[in-house]
Amino acid sequence: VRKTFDINSLDHIALIGVGLLGGSVGLALRAAGFTGTRVGIGRRQASLDRAVAADAVDEVSLDPAEGVAGARLVVVCTPISQFEAILRAMAPALQPGTYVTDVASAKGEVVRLAGRLLPRGVRFVGSHPMAGSEKTGVEYARADLFERALCLLTPTARTAPATVRWVQGFWESLGARTQVMSPRRHDTLLARASHLPHAVAAAIIHLARRGSAIDVAGPGFADTTRIASGDAAMWADIFRANREAMIQAVDGLADGLAHLRELLERGDIDAVLRWLDAARKTRDAWMARRWTKKTLPP
Amino acid sequence: VRKTFDINSLDHIALIGVGLLGGSVGLALRAAGFTGTRVGIGRRQASLDRAVAADAVDEVSLDPAEGVAGARLVVVCTPISQFEAILRAMAPALQPGTYVTDVASAKGEVVRLAGRLLPRGVRFVGSHPMAGSEKTGVEYARADLFERALCLLTPTARTAPATVRWVQGFWESLGARTQVMSPRRHDTLLARASHLPHAVAAAIIHLARRGSAIDVAGPGFADTTRIASGDAAMWADIFRANREAMIQAVDGLADGLAHLRELLERGDIDAVLRWLDAARKTRDAWMARRWTKKTLPP
Repeated sequence: VRKTFDINSLDHIALIGVGLLGGSVGLALRAAGFTGTRVGIGRRQASLDRAVAADAVDEVSLDPAEGVAGARLVVVCTPISQFEAILRAMAPALQPGTYVTDVASAKGEVVRLAGRLLPRGVRFVGSHPMAGSEKTGVEYARADLFERALCLLTPTARTAPATVRWVQGFWESLGARTQVMSPRRHDTLLARASHLPHAVAAAIIHLARRGSAIDVAGPGFADTTRIASGDAAMWADIFRANREAMIQAVDGLADGLAHLRELLERGDIDAVLRWLDAARKTRDAWMARRWTKKTLPP
Repeated sequence: VRKTFDINSLDHIALIGVGLLGGSVGLALRAAGFTGTRVGIGRRQASLDRAVAADAVDEVSLDPAEGVAGARLVVVCTPISQFEAILRAMAPALQPGTYVTDVASAKGEVVRLAGRLLPRGVRFVGSHPMAGSEKTGVEYARADLFERALCLLTPTARTAPATVRWVQGFWESLGARTQVMSPRRHDTLLARASHLPHAVAAAIIHLARRGSAIDVAGPGFADTTRIASGDAAMWADIFRANREAMIQAVDGLADGLAHLRELLERGDIDAVLRWLDAARKTRDAWMARRWTKKTLPP
């Protein structure tokens, strides 16, 4: 944790959206020793009641403007499709100097909206804590969700370096590691490493429906397609927000499949073997690095 | 278990290849009450010694002709690339009436080779027990590997129905469920449900190497690509043996990705959502059926 950051220099933090991620921010704040007020903001009283019952927030509001009034930090944890309405609704109530960040999986659109809709003097930088699960709802929230998770921050040329450092300090106080990159680079990398794999899992399932091939699928198929059981609306929203990078990633994968097809057509099985083996080695090295990061102190 | 099948009507079973699958057949035979002799046949004395040490076989031979002499059942458990040499080597030593089957993941080539190289009077039908793991070697062999696993049998027009029933009885005595289909249908379905997903996992890893996107990959990526850590040589061999169906499956997936790309291009997010949701429902229903099959008695 950066020495410059003290979680209790804040007395009021607003969480907009209190599902798995927003709820986990609330629980992690308390676990990190935050003694101030966590205000949960949502669209349905029932969700807010469940967040209070889970001890993820202390107070609640159905009105973003009311909920953020007086907050020193606002974390937006809703689907991207709700960002514009939320930023518009809360903008007039934000004090100058308030920090605003979010947890969305695609950053370009979010960062553009914040640049356009938040008042001058509000300190915004986009965040993407890479934690979560295919579950949704505050019932699955966990105080340790961000523990050693990687959180990507996506400043623009207009973001003050001090704002980036402050928000890094915030996520690190919840146990995350942080890394800084541009929104564009974030979206390109995430399209390849996360959004496209999700789409491919769905495409494989559609292919396996033909002739009921799925009925002879085994445990490997269950692993490969697990992410396709996630929230379809959330993923469609991410694909929409990251449309350009997604299209590029689809094209990149299509190139890879065309390469394999050509090797198969000309029966160059040595080249197929090298291609498979290079992928295996890349994955094994990645798994080994992940393991190290997870087991060594950050 | 079919009443017509009695495992102890045999006194000598030959297993060619004593790795994970061959070793598991040996262990499962003993667990099923087989009291005869299990002969393990391999190319390296060290592997055969390990199979004896694991109690997967009783006797060993480096020579297929010697090992199968007197056997009433031969199960070929080697990579497909070794089939031709093995069938040629053992053919002269097989008694009329001997049953021969295998465990290969692609059946067209295996069945053609058997039809061409095995003597008249030998009773061959291809098998594909859908069990295994990304591990290799007799050390990972398990007596319960085939328990409730699906085993596909692939007779041709020339296979006697009694041979199919007998080999079904054999696999069922090891705990498997069996299903019969043509070699061509088997290979088409497996290309979609197993072989292509393996290739796609490798293609996703190659894409994720670009710009080091893999360094921001999360747990979903680990699941999606797990099968790419399998034995590259074995998979290249399967792709070669099932080349035509693989090319068709690659084309089918490319069509699915092109469909998604078009929806993204024209911004039809409702259609993307329906496409994702249909995949999710198909997978969830499949998982529920699998669960039922695994927990109810066969």
